[in-house]
Parts: sequence; C-alpha cells; structure tokens
Amino acid sequence: MRDSIRLQAALAAALALGGTARADEGMWLYTSPPTQQIRERYGFDITQDWLDHLMKASVRFNSGGSGSFVSEDGLVLSNHHVGADALQKLSSEKNNYLRDGFHARSHAEEVRCVDLELNVLQSIEDVTAKVNAAVAAGASAESAFKARRAAMAEIEKDSLAKTGLRSDVVTLYQGGAYHLYRFKKYTDVRLVFAPEQQAAFFGGDPDNFEYPRYDLDVCFFRVYEDGKPARVPHWLKWSANGAAPGELTFVSGHPGRTSRLLTVAELEHLRDNQFPYTLELLKRREVLLNSWSQRSAENMRRAKDDLFGVQNSRKARDGGHAGLYDPAIMGAKLAAERAFKARLEGRAEFADALAAYETIERVTREVRPMALRHRLLEGANGFACDSFSIARRLLRAADEFPKPNGDRLREFTEAGRESFELSLFSEQPIHEDLEILLLADSLTFLAEKLGHADTAVQAVLAGKSPRARASELVRGTRVREVAVRRRLYKEGAAAVTVTKDPMIELARAVDGEARELRRKLEALDESKRQAYAAISKARFALDGPKSYPDATFTLRLAYGTVKGYEEDGRPVPAMTTLSGMYERAAGMEYRPPFDLPKRWLDRRKSVKGTVPFNFVGTHDIIGGNSGSPVVNRAGEFVGIIFDGNIQSLVLDFAFEEEKARSLSVHSAGILEALRSVYRADGLVRELLRGRGKG
Amino acid sequence: MRDSIRLQAALAAALALGGTARADEGMWLYTSPPTQQIRERYGFDITQDWLDHLMKASVRFNSGGSGSFVSEDGLVLSNHHVGADALQKLSSEKNNYLRDGFHARSHAEEVRCVDLELNVLQSIEDVTAKVNAAVAAGASAESAFKARRAAMAEIEKDSLAKTGLRSDVVTLYQGGAYHLYRFKKYTDVRLVFAPEQQAAFFGGDPDNFEYPRYDLDVCFFRVYEDGKPARVPHWLKWSANGAAPGELTFVSGHPGRTSRLLTVAELEHLRDNQFPYTLELLKRREVLLNSWSQRSAENMRRAKDDLFGVQNSRKARDGGHAGLYDPAIMGAKLAAERAFKARLEGRAEFADALAAYETIERVTREVRPMALRHRLLEGANGFACDSFSIARRLLRAADEFPKPNGDRLREFTEAGRESFELSLFSEQPIHEDLEILLLADSLTFLAEKLGHADTAVQAVLAGKSPRARASELVRGTRVREVAVRRRLYKEGAAAVTVTKDPMIELARAVDGEARELRRKLEALDESKRQAYAAISKARFALDGPKSYPDATFTLRLAYGTVKGYEEDGRPVPAMTTLSGMYERAAGMEYRPPFDLPKRWLDRRKSVKGTVPFNFVGTHDIIGGNSGSPVVNRAGEFVGIIFDGNIQSLVLDFAFEEEKARSLSVHSAGILEALRSVYRADGLVRELLRGRGKG
Repeated sequence: MRDSIRLQAALAAALALGGTARADEGMWLYTSPPTQQIRERYGFDITQDWLDHLMKASVRFNSGGSGSFVSEDGLVLSNHHVGADALQKLSSEKNNYLRDGFHARSHAEEVRCVDLELNVLQSIEDVTAKVNAAVAAGASAESAFKARRAAMAEIEKDSLAKTGLRSDVVTLYQGGAYHLYRFKKYTDVRLVFAPEQQAAFFGGDPDNFEYPRYDLDVCFFRVYEDGKPARVPHWLKWSANGAAPGELTFVSGHPGRTSRLLTVAELEHLRDNQFPYTLELLKRREVLLNSWSQRSAENMRRAKDDLFGVQNSRKARDGGHAGLYDPAIMGAKLAAERAFKARLEGRAEFADALAAYETIERVTREVRPMALRHRLLEGANGFACDSFSIARRLLRAADEFPKPNGDRLREFTEAGRESFELSLFSEQPIHEDLEILLLADSLTFLAEKLGHADTAVQAVLAGKSPRARASELVRGTRVREVAVRRRLYKEGAAAVTVTKDPMIELARAVDGEARELRRKLEALDESKRQAYAAISKARFALDGPKSYPDATFTLRLAYGTVKGYEEDGRPVPAMTTLSGMYERAAGMEYRPPFDLPKRWLDRRKSVKGTVPFNFVGTHDIIGGNSGSPVVNRAGEFVGIIFDGNIQSLVLDFAFEEEKARSLSVHSAGILEALRSVYRADGLVRELLRGRGKG
Repeated sequence: MRDSIRLQAALAAALALGGTARADEGMWLYTSPPTQQIRERYGFDITQDWLDHLMKASVRFNSGGSGSFVSEDGLVLSNHHVGADALQKLSSEKNNYLRDGFHARSHAEEVRCVDLELNVLQSIEDVTAKVNAAVAAGASAESAFKARRAAMAEIEKDSLAKTGLRSDVVTLYQGGAYHLYRFKKYTDVRLVFAPEQQAAFFGGDPDNFEYPRYDLDVCFFRVYEDGKPARVPHWLKWSANGAAPGELTFVSGHPGRTSRLLTVAELEHLRDNQFPYTLELLKRREVLLNSWSQRSAENMRRAKDDLFGVQNSRKARDGGHAGLYDPAIMGAKLAAERAFKARLEGRAEFADALAAYETIERVTREVRPMALRHRLLEGANGFACDSFSIARRLLRAADEFPKPNGDRLREFTEAGRESFELSLFSEQPIHEDLEILLLADSLTFLAEKLGHADTAVQAVLAGKSPRARASELVRGTRVREVAVRRRLYKEGAAAVTVTKDPMIELARAVDGEARELRRKLEALDESKRQAYAAISKARFALDGPKSYPDATFTLRLAYGTVKGYEEDGRPVPAMTTLSGMYERAAGMEYRPPFDLPKRWLDRRKSVKGTVPFNFVGTHDIIGGNSGSPVVNRAGEFVGIIFDGNIQSLVLDFAFEEEKARSLSVHSAGILEALRSVYRADGLVRELLRGRGKG
C-alpha cells in the first residue's frame, strides 16, 4: 500500500505538469527528441547525425515489432517472438523451425520468408496543416472524416509517386498532428538464424512479463535486393561487452499503442467495457487453443504461434486492466485532468478545449451500444479465422479498388496496394482443422453476444449449429488456394459478386451491416479526434509542444538506465547470467516450459556461466518495442528489448520508473550463446566485423 | 450432418412419446426401476433383493461423486478424481499423495481423511403429499416456499430423531414429487490406495471426455466405525473377468443434474444466459489457475485439484452448450413440447398444466435481470475463495441457528447440522497466496460485471484496487484458523456481530442484498416448481408415472450394453487394453500429461498388455456418476464409471445411444495394475476374497 500511495503522489506531480516528461519518461518522436532532458539528467548531447544514424538503422516489422540492422550486409536482428509469425509460416510437420530453430551456414541456405515486409524510416514530414485544410469549417463529422481520409490518401499517393518510398500519414496526439512517414521497404527477407523456442521463450507463459529472466529471444534475418544481400548504409556496431549496470542507454523502436493522453471518461470506458470484452475473448481463445494443442504434437505445432500471441496479449491486458483499477493511477489522472481544466476555464481562447472534454464523454457514451456489434461484425471477432479474413478482403477489394483513391476504405488506398497484395497472396499454410475450431468457437461467441434470435446471427448460422456451420463453411470455401484468390482478385467484381464460394457469401451477407457500423463509428471517431486536437492545441499553447504523443507503432526514441528494482522488499538485480538459466531449469525440474534444449544441456560445460544474459532498464517502452535495439552513447548495440516486467504493464496509462522495467537480451549473452551453444562462428564473425564473408 | 438429421428423427420420436423411455435410456429411481423395459429388451428380470443389495452397496461421496463397497471390511472404491479433493487435503509440499499416489499396506497405515463424508442409502419414502399439504391453497409464492421449506425441515428432523439416519427430502420432477432419502453416514473414512495422478488421469485435460482412453481412475478408501474397519452387510463381489463386449450391465450411482424435463423457454435461457455466464467464469478461472500453476511446482500442487475441477466443468459445459445450439436437439424439444401441449388443449383438467408453460416463461424472464447479481453476491462468484466461504458460514450460522428449524435457510437445518460442522471445522489446508489470487480475480470480475460505480462494488472495494483489497482481506482475516472458527461458532451472534475480522465484515456488508436476492429468487423458483408440478401431474395422468425424473444427485439405476461406436466413419472399439496406454504415451513422446509414471515404465515387462483397461457402454449417465460401480446380471463388480465421451455431453438435455457412451475402468484392468505395477497383493487378495486379512 505504501508503494501505491508513493506512486500516486509521483504520478499526480508528473501529470499536474500538464504532460511535460520527467525522469526517464517518454516515447519521443525523432523530430522532437528529448535533447534537453538527457543533457540535464545525464550530461549527454544527442546530435542530429547520431539520431539520423540510429533512425536509419532501426527496422520495423510489418507483422508487429521492431528490429535493427547489425551488419552492412543487411543482417537484421529482432526477437524470436517477433519472427515467430515468419517461422510458423515456414514450418511444416517435417521441419518445425519455430520449435527447433534454424541456422543457415551460408547465404545459399538462407530461406525466404513467406510474406514478411520490413520498413526502414527515411524521413518525417509534418502535414498537419494540409490534412486539416481539407476539412471545411462546420462540416459534419462524417464528411469531415471523408475529406480527411481523402486528403491523407492523396498525400500518400503523391509521396509514393515522387519518392518511390512507402508513404504513411500517421495520426499523432489523438488528432493533434499528422505526420507523413516515408519508409524504404524490403519484401525479400530471408531467415538466417533462430534458436529453439525453448531457449528463446524459456519459461514460456508462466515467466512471460516476469523477471529475473533467461531468454535468448533473438532471430536473425537478412534483407535482399535483386536476389543479393542488400548493402545497407546504416547499421549498428556490436558491443562485445554490452550494457553495464548504471549505464545510460537508448531504445529505438515502435511502441504499438499507449493511452496516456486519453481523458478520464475514455479511460473509464476502457476499464469498464473494452478491456473486459477483450479479456473475455482472449481467455476464451486461450482455453480453446490450449486444449486443442494438447491433443497432439501436430495440433501443438499448428496453433503454437497463435497461442503465444493470445497468451501474451492476455497477460499484458490483465496487467493494464489492473492499472485502470488502481486508485493511484486513476486518482492521479483525475487530479491532473481537473487541474488542467481549471487552467482553461474562463479563457475564451480555450473554450473549445474545455468543451472537448464533454464531446469525448458524449461520443464515448454513444459508441458504447454500437461497439459490440462493431467488434463482432466489422472487427470479425465473430468470424475469427484466416479463411474469412481472406474472403472479406477479396469481396471488398472488388468493391473498393474501382473507387477513386480518396473514397476507399483506409486499407485499400493506392499507396498501400503493394503491401496489401503481399499479404493477400501469402502462401502461408492455413490448416482446415484449426480453422474449423476457431470459426466454430467464434460463431458461438457471436450467438452468445448478440443472442440466438438476432437477425444477423440467424443469417450467419443458416439454421445450423455453430459447429456444423463452421465445418461446412471451412470445408466448402476455396479461398485457401492462392491461385483461386489471384483469379478472383484479378477478375474483380465480375467474379466476386457471382461466386458461390460459401465464405465469400458469408462475408457478403454481413457486409452491409458491418460497413454501416464502421461508417457510424468512423464519424464518431472523427468527432473525438477534433476534440483531442482542441485539447492538444490548448496544451501546446500553455506548455509548449515539449511532450511526446501516445504510441502509434511509429518510430520512437526512449532512454533510461540499466537498473534493478525492489520487489516485496527484496532487491532484484539489474542483470542475470547464463548460469542462472541452468539453475532455473533445474529448480523447475526441467518440466516444460522450463525444459532446456538438448544442445544447451550437452554444451553446458563450454558455456561461460558468468556472461550477462538478460537485463532490465528504466526505458519507457510498450508492446511493439519488442526487438528494439538498445544502444549506448556511442550508438553501439548493447542489447535487444524483448519484454517488460509485470510492473511495466501500467505504462499503457502512465510512466513509472520505480518498479517498471524494460527487459533486454544482453549483447554479450547473445555472442556467447552463438559461439558456445550454436557454434555459429560465421554469424559471430559478421557481428563483430560488421560485415559478412563477401 | 447426416448424423444430425438421424439424431433429430430419433429424438423427435422419443420425445413425442411424452417422456417414456426407449432403448437404454434412463436414470431410474430405485423405487420405480425399469423392470419391464429390461425384461423386454434383454430378457432379464431384476428382483427386489437384487435391487436392495445394489442400493446398499452403493456409496455417495458428499464431496460430489459415487462409489461402492467392494469388501465386507468396508473397502470403498471410487474414482481417483472423486477422491482428489480428499487427496489434495491430505497432501503437503512434502507428501504429495494427489500426484504421487498412496498405498497403505496395513490398516495401521490407512490415513484418515480431513472432512470426507460418505452416505449409503437405506430407504426411500414418498412424502409428496405431506410437503404439498403444508402449502395453503392460494398462498403467495414466497409464503408457499417458506411453508414448504419448513415442512421439509420438519420431516427431516423427525426422521433423524426417529432413525438416527441422515435424512434429506429431495425434490424430483422439478417439483412434481418429494422423497425422503435416509442414509447411513460414515465420517471416519481412511485412504487405502491411490495411483499416481499421471496413471489415474493419463492424458489429462486434452484426453478428458475423449475415447479411446487408458486411465486407472480409481481410489480405494475404507470406512471405519469406533476406530475399526466397519463391517458392511452389502458389498459387490469382484468379477476377475469383468465386462465383455455386448454384455448387459448396470450402473448404480448419483448423476448430479440433468435438464431433460425443462421447457423450451428454460432451455433457451440456459443457452443464451446461464451457460455463457458460467463458461466465461470457468475459462477465466482456468487461465488464472493454469498460468499461476506453471510458475512453480508448489503452485501447481496447490492449485491442482481446483484446476482439474474447472477444466472438467468447462469441457462438460462446452459440450452441453453445443448441444443447446444443435437444431437436432432443440428442434426435437420444440416439436415434443408442441405435441404435448396439443394433447392438453381444450381439456379443463389440464388447463393449469397448459398455463404452467406460460408461468415458466414469465418467471424465466423475471429471473434474468436478477440472476447476475444473485450469482455474484449470493452465489459468491464475486468472492470466490475459501476464506470468504468460511466467513459467510460463520456469519450466517450466528443468524440462522437461533431461528426455529423451519425458518432457517436450507443449509442450516437441524438435520444437516452435523455435516455442516464437519465441513466448517475441516482442517483442510488453505493457501494464502492462492486465496489472494482467486479473490483478486473475482473482485475484478465483480467490478466488471456490475460496473465500477455500483454501490455494492464500491462498498466491497473500499477505495482500493481489487488486488490490493484482496491482499488486505486475505492477509487480515483469521478464519483460516480452525480454533478461531470454533470459538466464533460457539459464541455465535454475540461474537460474530462485533468481530472486526475483515472477511466477516465483508460478508456482513453484502449480506443484506445477497439475502434479499435469494429471497426473491426462491419465490420465483417456487412459482416454477408449482408450474412443473402441474405439468408432471398432467404427464402422469396421460402417460402413467413410468418415466424417471431429472438427475438430482440422488441414487439412480441405469442399464446398457458394453458397445463401441462410429466416429467420422471409423469404428471405435468397445475396449482398450493396457498395452494401448504404453502406445499412446509413446505416440505423444511421453510429454505431460502423457508422461507415464516411472513405476509403469519400469514394470512394463511384467504387465499383461492384452488385459482390458477401459471400456464404453450405452448407459445413461452424467457428472456425479463418476465412481459408480458397473455390475453384471449377477450383481458382480465388472467396472467403474469414470467419464463419458464427448458425444455424451448432450445427455444433459436428451438421451442418445448411437454415439454417446459411458466410460469405465475395467475390473480386470484394475486387478492387473494392482498386481503387476503396484504389487498391491494384499488389496488384490481382499478384492478377490471379499474381505481383508482379519
């Protein structure tokens, strides 16, 4: 309890300052780095060159995650759990790379990933004025949204045409600003090295988000251009010594989403509606996949990556949800909001900002009764299988691509077309049995949530039980054949509107209502965006634009110290060592998921046990940061983020540095494992020299 | 689909007959056995002596399950999973009997269970007229309920005083009849033998409710009187050969609950409200316990029995729920109900029966908005931990016991007092950490379901987060000390009303609303009971009282054939063998829960692989039947029920014999395992001779 009160006081103080970051807080835009804070706190000056180099050595995994270049020959390092999606898609019953690992001893042995796209940020441009200019004063929320969407699509298309770079307009500060991000894109990505999942995710779900930890959560890829390893201008030098306790380090990566700038009304909506819904769904899915996985080794293989994702999200959400129930956090939020509103009161220039709080509350109230149907029908929680996702994309592609670029749904813009096709035509294996399992359960969920008598439910089930209907749909559809997809996509509406494919027919049956729900919610979101923009403007006017926006899976810079913490009165050290992993395994009697890979057991004697393995730091990170490089003042690679501790899960809503910690794999630990366990001498040489054999 | 249509036709035919049982259907009362059906179908006559012997050799486990006497020296056989609660309570970090098994080689080594009570049915008396006579014509539902409750308590108290036997008035046909069951009670129950859980529950949750199976799901106890093994007059002779394919066999046990006589309106309520709620709660609890269990071996031990119970219920409910979504079942139910109502129409004597359908629908509608609060506050789903359960019992005992017997809540009647105290003063270990985990999660569930702003939620949380509040309550209460309980119980209201024990204060804080909800729902239940009684009366008048009531955890007789079935077009044989277990383990690479105990691996060579191990039959069973003896025409023990296959889960709502199967451990398989794996020669000798060494 004492901790909680202390936390409340700290948070109240931090938030009362109107969002100005203190301590090691912040997921900073590369365009407005925390130069002054770092200088004041650590006496270190970050320069434009230093930033530029780090930005261009940072890699975004489109499948959700971060990484970095670690050799000029296009070698990319990320987490095993970020690479898991790619590993799963490359695996078969015979070659289970996800479980057993992979090691290419030459470029020729590197295997191309099925549908992996990597992005490297090249430039950032503020286009706020352009995007806002498109919206006529006094326009309805719905037409404002359409105008804004069109403006964004146009900016992206122009930029793509002009630069050839992937161009995304991103929304920052919940609508306070719009930036154009241009990325160099790599779609020929090959797998170089992955350890066994037992080593990468040692301790599994039970140790996930816990510390101390002992995980070799790494995976190496290489980007290719024209069939050859790409030569990249920016890459990180490997520090053989790695991070040291007390050292200032930086994290460059792509935090996925935070909710720190949300109003109290929205946070309460998250707490009371959205989190409970999502957690119910995740726990249901976890039980389903877990139970099915245990029936056979092949089931386990097929569901592994999905199950990991579900468990990981569940644990993260449970932690975040607990934060929303913590009076220390919500009390501080409320106090800060009141204090800020008091500063706005009675000042005509801030009247719209003050009114914005009411708008957000009203919109949140209006969203509530629609949200469930929206998640089930448009969000496809009622049809959670790959076959449905493909069927809907085919159906909508036929509707959307013929429209003018600016009128299309956001995921069908011209600028994103290439990435859309890469994903749609992916040769990833899709398993009929798992599809039936997932669809049967989500049809049941749909019927439970909307009621069996609901018109949409009746139409979807077509007089069958959820299980029978799922079986009929999954067995009957042909969208799992890539050739069929290509044909339907090419022939467009002419073919798609007449096909009798049952999954496409299902997608069509719910499309009217799904689109209508989306239209209504997008209009409400626009009202909210305008309201947040008014609040942001007031905040900038009062406190200067010194702070950072909420995370949006765009590249950010965080900083912090390698540092332990205290738990239940006991100190938790900053670093673990390789021998600690052997001790934890023995303590858990080598029972899965604490069963070390055979290679680790066999080669135990050659492993230097004192080498650092994992470490914690005060960096401000969140999901999506997985795989982010940790660099020292010299910009050298000293570790790789792979998790946060359980106390860090509240970072979704507020920064905390007493106990919340980022978790990283240490650069020295990686080297030692590659050397002594995997005998990956070529890879070690490339890391130390910064280039391959060529 | 073909199966489903066939099933629909069969069910419609069966149900159209107005409930008269066909084929091997039925969980029959011992007072109206299916004598004629068995004679017609199998040419076998069951006699009163035969029934009497089987009834008195059958044992009810008060913790939930069935069993039988298998030696005149009071040896009782049940399932390992029925005994698991007792095993868990006897286990410690040092002696993990639940996991590792137990074997007393002499009476002196038999250990007394913490709070296990066994009941043996001695007589059944129809008290319908007496119970109904207490209810004045035209009484409100609430006073009718009170009068009925008082009458039942009085009958029980008189019977206890007269016979010294445990006396329970049970409600049958949803209120169509009331019977007085008298049991001989054993409270000195000692553990004799249990295999390792890996052998008893080989295949764990993934293979639960599946077939083929290979489980030694048995556990031996012995009842004592005056400190010596009890000599019991009725016990089952052991058949060394056991059940044979095609053989007629009988099951005598305590099916817990079925819902076959419910109206369609109530079934829809189950499908749309009750099952989704329960399943959400179970899946949430499963994820919680599973994730916590995996953190350490000791956590796993502490949560094992709870986790098994949750997984088992979840799988059973998921199967039952799927049945309610199956148009074959619900369509047949609807058709049967319509057909029966058509027979009632226009006949004045059945007007009340016809009106009863509307009453049930109305009551079901009225229950709905109250049900959630009732489950959370009175059902204690919002406070799911042992400490709360004890605190509430102490609080209410102080309120209730001073009242006249007939005015008390049902669980505080004089006749049940001894059993109540046995449970309240149980020395079972309760773990603080697990209690906090469970309470924190259920307080969160409470806040989610009722909303954070709800008055009850605010009172319960007292300004803390669910985690902080749970920790404070569990650490602060002293009700886990049996001496404290005894003192509070003895001093009664004087002590309980002034105690500052935080858990009792919590129970007190919600008691007003909880009792009020219960009062309202009990009145609604009474209206429903009266309605069902009217329907039952009409059914008896039209078709004779030939059928069996829904299961109510009272002793029932089922019959059926040892027989395989077809699944996905492939035949599933009636029996498995011991060598099949070794093959399944090898096929699953000995990965838990397919890891055979060391003893089974070491002694493989001495095990006769061809001996039958598990078998399936057409008996009509459901949860609660676990541990029921399977006997042949001669009344000999040929097997023990331990599960049903996944297709049997719809038996909750309707009988089916094409694919639904009971699962049993074979008497020959048990003998062979005891002999060759456990070297339990004394036990084998006692089983074959029917008495111990004495």
